[in-house]
Amino acid sequence: MKKIEYSPLFWPVELKEDNIYVLDETLLPGKKQYIKVSTYQDACRAIKQMKTRAVGQVILVLYTFLLILRKNSNKKDLSPLLAKVAQAINDTRPTLSFKYLTDLVLNWHKANAPLEKCIRGFLETLKNARIKQAMESAKLLKDGDVVLTHCNVSGLLPLIAKICQKQKKVITFFATETRPYLQGARLTAWELNKAKIKVVLIADNMVAQVMKEGKIDKVIVGSDNLAQNGDIANKIGTYQMAIIARYFKIPFYVLCPPASRAKTGKDIKIEIRPDKELLNFCGKRIAPKEVEGYYPAFDVTPVGLITKHIYLDIK
Amino acid sequence: MKKIEYSPLFWPVELKEDNIYVLDETLLPGKKQYIKVSTYQDACRAIKQMKTRAVGQVILVLYTFLLILRKNSNKKDLSPLLAKVAQAINDTRPTLSFKYLTDLVLNWHKANAPLEKCIRGFLETLKNARIKQAMESAKLLKDGDVVLTHCNVSGLLPLIAKICQKQKKVITFFATETRPYLQGARLTAWELNKAKIKVVLIADNMVAQVMKEGKIDKVIVGSDNLAQNGDIANKIGTYQMAIIARYFKIPFYVLCPPASRAKTGKDIKIEIRPDKELLNFCGKRIAPKEVEGYYPAFDVTPVGLITKHIYLDIK
Repeated sequence: MKKIEYSPLFWPVELKEDNIYVLDETLLPGKKQYIKVSTYQDACRAIKQMKTRAVGQVILVLYTFLLILRKNSNKKDLSPLLAKVAQAINDTRPTLSFKYLTDLVLNWHKANAPLEKCIRGFLETLKNARIKQAMESAKLLKDGDVVLTHCNVSGLLPLIAKICQKQKKVITFFATETRPYLQGARLTAWELNKAKIKVVLIADNMVAQVMKEGKIDKVIVGSDNLAQNGDIANKIGTYQMAIIARYFKIPFYVLCPPASRAKTGKDIKIEIRPDKELLNFCGKRIAPKEVEGYYPAFDVTPVGLITKHIYLDIK
Repeated sequence: MKKIEYSPLFWPVELKEDNIYVLDETLLPGKKQYIKVSTYQDACRAIKQMKTRAVGQVILVLYTFLLILRKNSNKKDLSPLLAKVAQAINDTRPTLSFKYLTDLVLNWHKANAPLEKCIRGFLETLKNARIKQAMESAKLLKDGDVVLTHCNVSGLLPLIAKICQKQKKVITFFATETRPYLQGARLTAWELNKAKIKVVLIADNMVAQVMKEGKIDKVIVGSDNLAQNGDIANKIGTYQMAIIARYFKIPFYVLCPPASRAKTGKDIKIEIRPDKELLNFCGKRIAPKEVEGYYPAFDVTPVGLITKHIYLDIK
């Protein structure tokens, strides 16, 4: 995979000496700017404000523990501090399983494993597993396929398309803009365009129409939480895309994280965000000020609507 | 129905002496401003620029003919002028059946009917038929029902809710914002709020989630074109809302215009609008400038997904 240039979203967080640098995804595509994170409180704030999301959150959490280790190397017993940091991280947002990650770290520490080495090893494994996940995805696609996606899968789609190119398969995309945060328009369209891969943007309400017109061969989406029974939680809108794909008999593939402790989708807590994030756009209110909104940030797609899970092999 | 105050969108076009005044729906809810229309070219421009839509377009077309009559009362043979105006109107936008309306007028003229009287009679019938349509809709609703809607049905929803109130039934609404033009946020939420009827705004990608949560009892949408077999064309997003409603076994009701000449939905031409209307918001580009968009402005919902048509009785 040497010659492939990765999307900036494939690994959007870097650790340099005593600071973490987080790609501010809220400013894309207008500005490519990194936020400096020096404390675990900074990290939690970046997550809450959605400065980074999906795999960026995972990397940020693990780098945050590396930062804690580095800044507290003289401390005798790190357990209370690690537990406090873990709790703060778990409390940021509910839908992605932060507890899966913080438990990993706490358990390594409890077992007296070399913590820095374990974390670095996990991140290396994660990176390789993501590349392998893209390679598995490419196997599902054939030359000429048009893939519909929703929200943003952190650099995996350009990677999949480039792997396909090496296999002489041309893949193009339709992306939903993904209201209200517009990750499809701002991130997915941006990273695909940057990688010179064709992408056509549609509004979230045009899914059935483009499928009806025969424009879509397959759907690929990511997921923020994989329950043990195969239900997945992902950005709001994924669920209805799966229902519509089923109606049109179009394959619906999901790029998965490691399974969380949730037994089924019912155990995954859906984050409800402030309605002002829906009702304001570019600082302009789109509805009368007395009108209320409702903004569930994720939804759960039941396993029965998923044609195939593309697992992340980090065992 | 005396005590009911109508939404400004119920009859958004007025004829006063030698001018037509058209409520500029693109400026709502920020500004309630009327555009002065003095010629048929002005009228065609207002339609093309979506200053008015749905029933507003119907009223504007008929008032335009009244204006033509008034300004050309000395002309011996009006036929060529009427045909020219009809053609210009038919050419504005493809999905609503303007030809149905212009043919009405041309046929009255051909039959030597008193044109002004026919047009005024038709508009009066239309107004009464719309009130009757709201009364029929109210029969389908029961106390406590939460109705999901899409786009805007030109004043009918507040009227339905008020009729229900008189029958001691409280009805509330969820409305999709309806990208890209935001008719749901700007018009439906505005007119319901103005009428003191509860409405909660969601993004177009939250339909399955609110249905899954049990928040929705019924769906009511309008339609721009009714084919003879019962297929309907309406604002993009209606089709997938019908698919999702069927998945959750939620009744899907459609407020219809008179049937057009289209035999089925396949005969209805779907308007494709410039992608810049999707890719720009408040003058700000939401995606990289090299990215293309696709903007079908309507879609067709097949008769099989419609629980009940609520017809407009203008016979």
